[in-house]
Amino acid sequence: MCLIMEAAEDHDGGVLAAPPNFSMVEDGIYRSGFPKPENFGFLTSLNLRSIIYLCPEPYPEENLKFLEANNIKLFQFGIEGKTDPPTPMPKDTVLDALKVLVDVRNHPILIHCKAGKHRTGCLVGCLRKVQSWCLSSVLEEYQKNAGLKWRQRDMSFIEAFDTLSLRQCLLSIMYRYHGYGFKRKRLLHEEENVQTPKPQAAKV
Amino acid sequence: MCLIMEAAEDHDGGVLAAPPNFSMVEDGIYRSGFPKPENFGFLTSLNLRSIIYLCPEPYPEENLKFLEANNIKLFQFGIEGKTDPPTPMPKDTVLDALKVLVDVRNHPILIHCKAGKHRTGCLVGCLRKVQSWCLSSVLEEYQKNAGLKWRQRDMSFIEAFDTLSLRQCLLSIMYRYHGYGFKRKRLLHEEENVQTPKPQAAKV
Repeated sequence: MCLIMEAAEDHDGGVLAAPPNFSMVEDGIYRSGFPKPENFGFLTSLNLRSIIYLCPEPYPEENLKFLEANNIKLFQFGIEGKTDPPTPMPKDTVLDALKVLVDVRNHPILIHCKAGKHRTGCLVGCLRKVQSWCLSSVLEEYQKNAGLKWRQRDMSFIEAFDTLSLRQCLLSIMYRYHGYGFKRKRLLHEEENVQTPKPQAAKV
Repeated sequence: MCLIMEAAEDHDGGVLAAPPNFSMVEDGIYRSGFPKPENFGFLTSLNLRSIIYLCPEPYPEENLKFLEANNIKLFQFGIEGKTDPPTPMPKDTVLDALKVLVDVRNHPILIHCKAGKHRTGCLVGCLRKVQSWCLSSVLEEYQKNAGLKWRQRDMSFIEAFDTLSLRQCLLSIMYRYHGYGFKRKRLLHEEENVQTPKPQAAKV
């Protein structure tokens, strides 16, 4: 009857500390700030298959060990955080991250940067546009997660982001896929590579 | 490959306007402020089975029609909003709502009040305690959704809320359930009533 209850009792009675600024985005998609070791118990309860990490800095050793122990794949897309003058959000990198994000073979997946506000907020904002959310709903969600630190330039980036190239990419994959006829339910390994941009960090 | 894409294309090309302060809580559990007719398209995309409505005011006629057309059950728990002096959050009512909320037979389910901040925030906070989230994670989530309107008394209510009675209730159901032996996988109709508090508003 109650899956929540079971989940809560699975972790030997301790309390679960969510990473900062954690929330659920969609079935199988989560977002947060940088997870620390005290959050690993919580992350384990999500049964993650992948993490999208949006900072250029190397992933900490203890986090890499956690990923290895739990067979979680790391996709790193190095986007600069706060710089002076501000670096524009790189739309091609966001598009690459988006392709990883919408591929259900990578789910359950956690997106995080440092605060879970700006880089993560931009990526989630672009996802919402792909999902056809209206702009005001997209920006409201961005602002809720960024709190007082929201940035006009992030909101302008989300507004200007063109989801057409992602749609075209996805439609071409779907076309290729369906092009083989109904008997072939699964793509060959070589063809799967087309759908999966290589992680910038090695698989741990 | 891309469920998101399919969902986005299901609604004949328009944009989807989420209800104010919308977010996903868990698989099959959503929260928001009061949905208006312009949000009905968005709500349809969630395939809701139920709504938990936490205000004492009657549900608007147009919303009732939407529920009826989509076969969505309404569970109303009338909790007062802003009053002077403030009314304490009624813990028995929150407990009743929680029992409806954790019953997966009611999922996908949307919780809403007026702003989706205080009453909804308290109910979600209590759910997180049942899930064994640590208090600081629970309160961070409450504050993120309440924004500048967060209330100390709501946070004190969540902190003081005792999840033991819910756990005992659930365990007694599980015990009864398992007590019948493995051959009976499903409760009888009469027994199901034990698990499902009656909606205060008639089923629409």
